[in-house]
Amino acid sequence: MEAYEKLEEHFEKLNRFGEVLAILGWDHAAMMPSGGAKARAEQMAMLRGLHHQMLTEPQVEEWLEKAGDADELDEWRRANLREMRRAWLHASSVPARLVEERSRKGSECEVLWRTARKDDDFARLAPYLQEVLKLTREVATIKAEAFGVSPYDALLDQFEPDGSSEKLDVVFDDLAEFLPGFLEEVLEHQAQAPDPIVPTGPFPQKKQEELARRLMQSWGFDFDHGRLDTSHHPFCGGYPEDVRLTTFYSEDNFLRAIMGVLHETGHALYSRGLPPDWRGQPVGRARGMGVHESQSLFVEMQVGRSRSFVRWVAPLYREVFGADGQEWSVDNLHRVKTRVERSLIRVDADEVTYPAHVILRYRLEKAMIAGDLEVEDLPAAWNEGMEELVGIRPPDNRDGCMQDIHWMDGTFGYFPTYTLGGLMAAQLYAAAERDLGDLDGAVESGEFSVLLDWLRENIHSVGCRLTTEELLKEATGSGLDAGYFKKHLRDRYLGPDHS
Amino acid sequence: MEAYEKLEEHFEKLNRFGEVLAILGWDHAAMMPSGGAKARAEQMAMLRGLHHQMLTEPQVEEWLEKAGDADELDEWRRANLREMRRAWLHASSVPARLVEERSRKGSECEVLWRTARKDDDFARLAPYLQEVLKLTREVATIKAEAFGVSPYDALLDQFEPDGSSEKLDVVFDDLAEFLPGFLEEVLEHQAQAPDPIVPTGPFPQKKQEELARRLMQSWGFDFDHGRLDTSHHPFCGGYPEDVRLTTFYSEDNFLRAIMGVLHETGHALYSRGLPPDWRGQPVGRARGMGVHESQSLFVEMQVGRSRSFVRWVAPLYREVFGADGQEWSVDNLHRVKTRVERSLIRVDADEVTYPAHVILRYRLEKAMIAGDLEVEDLPAAWNEGMEELVGIRPPDNRDGCMQDIHWMDGTFGYFPTYTLGGLMAAQLYAAAERDLGDLDGAVESGEFSVLLDWLRENIHSVGCRLTTEELLKEATGSGLDAGYFKKHLRDRYLGPDHS
Repeated sequence: MEAYEKLEEHFEKLNRFGEVLAILGWDHAAMMPSGGAKARAEQMAMLRGLHHQMLTEPQVEEWLEKAGDADELDEWRRANLREMRRAWLHASSVPARLVEERSRKGSECEVLWRTARKDDDFARLAPYLQEVLKLTREVATIKAEAFGVSPYDALLDQFEPDGSSEKLDVVFDDLAEFLPGFLEEVLEHQAQAPDPIVPTGPFPQKKQEELARRLMQSWGFDFDHGRLDTSHHPFCGGYPEDVRLTTFYSEDNFLRAIMGVLHETGHALYSRGLPPDWRGQPVGRARGMGVHESQSLFVEMQVGRSRSFVRWVAPLYREVFGADGQEWSVDNLHRVKTRVERSLIRVDADEVTYPAHVILRYRLEKAMIAGDLEVEDLPAAWNEGMEELVGIRPPDNRDGCMQDIHWMDGTFGYFPTYTLGGLMAAQLYAAAERDLGDLDGAVESGEFSVLLDWLRENIHSVGCRLTTEELLKEATGSGLDAGYFKKHLRDRYLGPDHS
Repeated sequence: MEAYEKLEEHFEKLNRFGEVLAILGWDHAAMMPSGGAKARAEQMAMLRGLHHQMLTEPQVEEWLEKAGDADELDEWRRANLREMRRAWLHASSVPARLVEERSRKGSECEVLWRTARKDDDFARLAPYLQEVLKLTREVATIKAEAFGVSPYDALLDQFEPDGSSEKLDVVFDDLAEFLPGFLEEVLEHQAQAPDPIVPTGPFPQKKQEELARRLMQSWGFDFDHGRLDTSHHPFCGGYPEDVRLTTFYSEDNFLRAIMGVLHETGHALYSRGLPPDWRGQPVGRARGMGVHESQSLFVEMQVGRSRSFVRWVAPLYREVFGADGQEWSVDNLHRVKTRVERSLIRVDADEVTYPAHVILRYRLEKAMIAGDLEVEDLPAAWNEGMEELVGIRPPDNRDGCMQDIHWMDGTFGYFPTYTLGGLMAAQLYAAAERDLGDLDGAVESGEFSVLLDWLRENIHSVGCRLTTEELLKEATGSGLDAGYFKKHLRDRYLGPDHS
């Protein structure tokens, strides 16, 4: 028991470092003047270094070994220990030299990418990305050994703990088979309805912000424990006591900011709802990026683009913007929010094509880590995959394989969590409906608290007590099942009679 | 040389901790939602603890000893070493147990004070304050031993390095003799002029903020390296690359926010102007709180309440607020900005009575540290001193000896720096006029860059290369001389013919 206590104390301190880094990161994106960048980078590098040093102190290994014998630990503590081990193994298995080199090469590649992408110059990027890939393969090989899994799965585990590409392959292959044909159907179906009319504004930022705050409040966001600000890339930062959400406003398109806020609100509610008794401990954290994304997509996609939600929100839009006209009708706004099209850019993709973008990236990064695909062959493989999965061929690399930041700084193994989140969100919504009965009425009257309560009980308050698989089983009755997502897509995009 | 290099490396890391703490402190005051307070307190306590631990590592003492032999160090490095020694001695001389206990008792006392002050309940406060005083005396005694100075001077050194109460006594006694009679004269003189008409607004916060930014920009504040925000108590935080200023707006009194911004801008320009080659090193920091305050008072008092400044700024006020009328005349605004009266509260005091408030506190805290005054006798001593120095007797303790936060959390030795700053500001302004010729023209046309250049060259860029005494001598030709301040007061409040 003593070793376990020591570990709790140690990880509590580590968590404080994490909180400080979260605030510094938020400040960097939302507040910091440009001239503060260099000092901030050095502050964060120092804190990350200290965090790593503390996490890999020899005592930690000793404590972990001794605590392993402690059969008297209850379920929460056992799970806590499991997550401590995971964190420790990720940190201690890779030599500091390699971590630093990868971080440095990643930063170099990212900086270069910003201009190379603008110039559509893949040749200039390639050697940098190849270097990042080489170092990432090294890391993956070492972690594979430590965790006893494949190199790709070892990377995946950083974002999706216990994630398995074997299982992902099954689910994603099934989806990849379903999507192209389904997309054809949706486009045909959509062509029979009137074209959506996108409200064009201008929408003053003040008004958009007011709307955003009202939506957050409707969902139960607690402004005594959080903020809303602006940053170039929207995100949800901070920690449970102090959740910091950002969005980005453009005056000609309020829906971009608003749907972004709904998305980040899903993340925020998850963070805020994590088990208070386990604050500061690994078991008190979010389960993984897949589950995190399921929470944001639950709010943004499952609820936020449903017809019932549009029924509730349309009058609010009209009130805040003092607007009226046919483009503000429920039917039209719902058409705008559920418009589907083949497009090049993942972050702008709709709910139907988004998974296709993700599956492409997942397949490519898995091949790159396995050594089956080299950087020089990436553009061709990308374009081919886009044609197959989305049915559109990028005219250049800028809007093709150079569009995402992830690989540039060495983030491999992250992409699949977006679609895992999408699948889980559909499965969770179906389970909530099973438990609570038809939800349309609650959504249509803006009573999101029934949904939030369900999420709090079944997901948020669990933290990392369960694995993702167990969490899903307890909440929904079964492990990951893409059937719910496919049904959801059919219901929403072809009409309920097609499901 | 090697030991010295090690020290530079070590202090650079310590400085990064300081920067992180500065951002967390700023965030706490300007951004953090109330629910984040507990987590923030723990984050800061942890970082302060680590900072203290790093500063007092045994190696540091070794390096300091070895580096002491290094005759090959140049002036900057010798001064750097001196300031490292000072920081190390302050941190290492006091046992951690005592530091912690004092910090805890200080927090308790401060929390209690907030309600006790509201209730005007000195009896409830007294035992807490007595405890803080007891622990502060212990610290002072230990530091006195380490530094070879009196206990009070050892506390003073934390804020005013090399400060000496013996010298302060001379200057402050002289001022204390001068002020009461002078105040009488000023009040009589003032009574002969029309009463000032205070513009009453309402002044929308947006407009005040616009005005504040324009004033900051006129003074050369660089928004690529800083921000302006709001907080309950205005302050200047951050660090040279990222200076964070705050103010507090009230819609019925724009001058409070604006004069506050000018004050903090003086601090900010100092911070930003510190020697860039010595960033991160003790010698690259501000000389002390006295010099810091001289920079804020230079901008706020010496310049900001001068008639030339009012001539420049009055049209700007009128433009920003779209206002007109007799209260916006230069004469009236100058009368508003230089109004003198006997009043109870230090932070609201004018330029003439402010030093009297400070001298009272200085004398009382010196007596308390020396054991010549106990907490139970404080109210009587306070009221007597107020009568003697300001000529007004507090009707209660709330607006008497319970008005300031300083002693509550154990900050003894800080008060005198306010008036040291005031004296230095007058001396520096006189020296600038000596070097640059009559400054009225520059101020009247808003050309503050000549003043800023002079301050940068003579004060900001020196950092801690010189002691305060040396700094003043190099910049003005003499050590601290209260004569400049007295002349300034006579010129401004009785007219130039009285000086």
